[in-house]
Amino acid sequence: MKHHRYRDVESSYEHYKNVLAEAVAIQSVSADPGRRNETIRMVHWMKDYLTKFGVESKLVDLGDQLLEGNQVPLPPVLFGTLGHDKSKKTLLVYGHLDVQPAEKSDGWNTEPFVLTEKDGKLFGRGSSDDKGPVLCWAHAIEMMQKHKVDIPVNIKFCFEAMEESGSVGLEELLTKEKDGFLQDVDFCCISDSYWLGTTKPCLTFGLRGICSFQVEVTGIAQDLHSGVYGGVVHEPLADLFWVMSQLTDVNGNILVPGIYDDVAPMTDEERKSYETIDFDVTEFRDSVGAKRLPIEDKNKLLQRRWREPSLAVHGVEGAFYGKGEKTVIPSKVIGKFSIRIVPNMKPEKVNSLVISYLNDVWKKRGSPNTFNPQPGHGALPWVANVQDPNFQAGARAMKHVHNVEPDLIREGCSIPITLTFQDLTGKNVLLLPLGASDDMAHSQNEKNNKRNYVEGVKTLLAYILELKHA
Amino acid sequence: MKHHRYRDVESSYEHYKNVLAEAVAIQSVSADPGRRNETIRMVHWMKDYLTKFGVESKLVDLGDQLLEGNQVPLPPVLFGTLGHDKSKKTLLVYGHLDVQPAEKSDGWNTEPFVLTEKDGKLFGRGSSDDKGPVLCWAHAIEMMQKHKVDIPVNIKFCFEAMEESGSVGLEELLTKEKDGFLQDVDFCCISDSYWLGTTKPCLTFGLRGICSFQVEVTGIAQDLHSGVYGGVVHEPLADLFWVMSQLTDVNGNILVPGIYDDVAPMTDEERKSYETIDFDVTEFRDSVGAKRLPIEDKNKLLQRRWREPSLAVHGVEGAFYGKGEKTVIPSKVIGKFSIRIVPNMKPEKVNSLVISYLNDVWKKRGSPNTFNPQPGHGALPWVANVQDPNFQAGARAMKHVHNVEPDLIREGCSIPITLTFQDLTGKNVLLLPLGASDDMAHSQNEKNNKRNYVEGVKTLLAYILELKHA
Repeated sequence: MKHHRYRDVESSYEHYKNVLAEAVAIQSVSADPGRRNETIRMVHWMKDYLTKFGVESKLVDLGDQLLEGNQVPLPPVLFGTLGHDKSKKTLLVYGHLDVQPAEKSDGWNTEPFVLTEKDGKLFGRGSSDDKGPVLCWAHAIEMMQKHKVDIPVNIKFCFEAMEESGSVGLEELLTKEKDGFLQDVDFCCISDSYWLGTTKPCLTFGLRGICSFQVEVTGIAQDLHSGVYGGVVHEPLADLFWVMSQLTDVNGNILVPGIYDDVAPMTDEERKSYETIDFDVTEFRDSVGAKRLPIEDKNKLLQRRWREPSLAVHGVEGAFYGKGEKTVIPSKVIGKFSIRIVPNMKPEKVNSLVISYLNDVWKKRGSPNTFNPQPGHGALPWVANVQDPNFQAGARAMKHVHNVEPDLIREGCSIPITLTFQDLTGKNVLLLPLGASDDMAHSQNEKNNKRNYVEGVKTLLAYILELKHA
Repeated sequence: MKHHRYRDVESSYEHYKNVLAEAVAIQSVSADPGRRNETIRMVHWMKDYLTKFGVESKLVDLGDQLLEGNQVPLPPVLFGTLGHDKSKKTLLVYGHLDVQPAEKSDGWNTEPFVLTEKDGKLFGRGSSDDKGPVLCWAHAIEMMQKHKVDIPVNIKFCFEAMEESGSVGLEELLTKEKDGFLQDVDFCCISDSYWLGTTKPCLTFGLRGICSFQVEVTGIAQDLHSGVYGGVVHEPLADLFWVMSQLTDVNGNILVPGIYDDVAPMTDEERKSYETIDFDVTEFRDSVGAKRLPIEDKNKLLQRRWREPSLAVHGVEGAFYGKGEKTVIPSKVIGKFSIRIVPNMKPEKVNSLVISYLNDVWKKRGSPNTFNPQPGHGALPWVANVQDPNFQAGARAMKHVHNVEPDLIREGCSIPITLTFQDLTGKNVLLLPLGASDDMAHSQNEKNNKRNYVEGVKTLLAYILELKHA
């Protein structure tokens, strides 16, 4: 019976692909005010799609947002409900419908918003982060209904479309819904992370948080011709390069004093747990395309990804960014960087340490330009109890589909909402990754493997059924 | 008679403005391969416009250029001739029809390619650099013909459309035309620079050269998610920030060893000449919008602008440049900077000193990433003899129109073609600036004052007539 359903999932692949193609075609880039309407349209599309399977949805308005000086409407949050059986437990599913920016000219081999299948891979922005996994839920429910399988839990859906832009407004809404929409939740599940490699499944029990920063330097009224003004003004961009060069050493160690003070010490048990994790450093290094990594010891490398802070520099706003030459002195430049944080670091303290360090560095610079460092959005790190029945149900589902015990891993990235759900429901949150490590979320050529997409449907189907015993 | 013509120039302003608006509307951004057709169209437009005044023009094909991996056609060069009278001397006029990149979103108050008049100013990309001055020549000729004034010289025009992108192909063409189009030239004149201030006219007898550079750092196969990969790869952008921070000190002194060795020593006569120049440091500082300048002594400041090298950093290609946050680790980044050079510096030596310094700095960094610094286009500095009859004719023309002797100044910027004309014709090249110092060439909100545009026509008219006595 189970295998019959699994075979039907496999033979439904073309259908699943067509649905995903429709979703990918909606350019729901939440960071782009020019595509805010598309982002909103994506939420409506999802509501309509879920209606086919009897999900009762409402769209919750979050009001406006000030973006680039304009009031733009926030996308609504989709609250969906399938089943009102008081005798059943309730599963809360979270996912997001917005995507990272993508332009073909960034280095995509295909149009980012046209789902394109090649060699068993489905290329397209959002194919894996997170439209593919979100649709796996819908496909799993569709399959259970088709085969008249009793769904053993009530299912609630919380789908937002601002995840890639700091989930503006969501936490506030959920807090208000603690005793409303979230009241009777027993389990939470999020499919918005990745396997550690490309072949073995895993469950994720830890995430890093994030503190992001913008450093603005200005001091001349507008961009100047470098021939006419070169040498007789203090260049904001030269100042910014210098400040940004003071953030890390060549191996990525963060130079902000005190930044490592609150990192949780490692227990012996935790140290041992790294021994059994299936992870190949050489394969990882090759997949990244690097000649050498700052750390090449397997356990130390995983520890740095999962339980140590890291600082990444992202770019500069306001300077010349095109190809070729433009001999200009930019007048106002903004450097972007972020720090991934781990237990027991707190964003407030990190922000304070970083801003204070930046101001010290700036004083050392001695430039008459105007310096304005600002913290951006922040999110706490998260660690879960893997002995919880929710995690155990997830592990059994993984084993059903893949015939192997999943690894228990942590992640370097941030899904701030994880902690919000844990706090507000008081229940365990399972991170159930469906995508492979090389899916390239946030990068050029994001893809979802055909295999992962299809087995993702099977896994969620199995997980929902396993919750009967949880 | 003279004043009658000048009044007619003044009353022709609306006509001049309409012609300039047509030229500005053609988006001849030579750096942008996507607007290469517009750049070519601009040359054709100019040819057609000059035909109205009896100028015989030919467009010289320069072949293709490899740009961003594609073969794109170079814009042709316009060679025009007005008059073939063997008894007259011949003036060669140079100008350029291409413009710097401009987008409204860069911070323009008006559409950059829509000429917009406000408070006596004509805003638009190219209004001052260099479409406005180029059209002043056409307007001056039109006015002389209207008033049946004998034009005392044959005039040749050399208008190109690659000036903002290194004048690719022009020097080679002109070298071939040494004994052809350039054979019988007696005077050269270029209107592509600016007054030292906003009220007093000047003639320019010196220019800095330029050496531009691109520094590429790569080492990971593609952009990576900073959550997943943060801390476990060597970030190319962090390396680049560090390298770019090693180019200058906070006051703009260049850190490349040996870079100042070939700067021509200052003679006593030269030192004295600075005493009489009309230049207000406070007004300059305020116009720039700076709180403090690296040098605030008038003479020392002018010396740094005109006779000392300077290094400007322009931007980064390949990193996040948008507003908001994008938590990505960019895989390949290219830093852009340029050095303005002065007598007796040579581009080849500067390139060699800079690349060697960059490689030393890179070794010190100790990163496993791949480092590739490259010199871009280079141009020699230039200084002219101001006692030449051509300069004296220019000075008399300035005095006719403005009732004041023009200052004799140098410029910080580069017009490499100046030296080419001097070398190939063996004649004096006059730089006759028509625009004000605050015209913001290469910046947001480039403009040409109504006054400067109108008096530019008068000045060129007077200059052409003065060449009778030169």
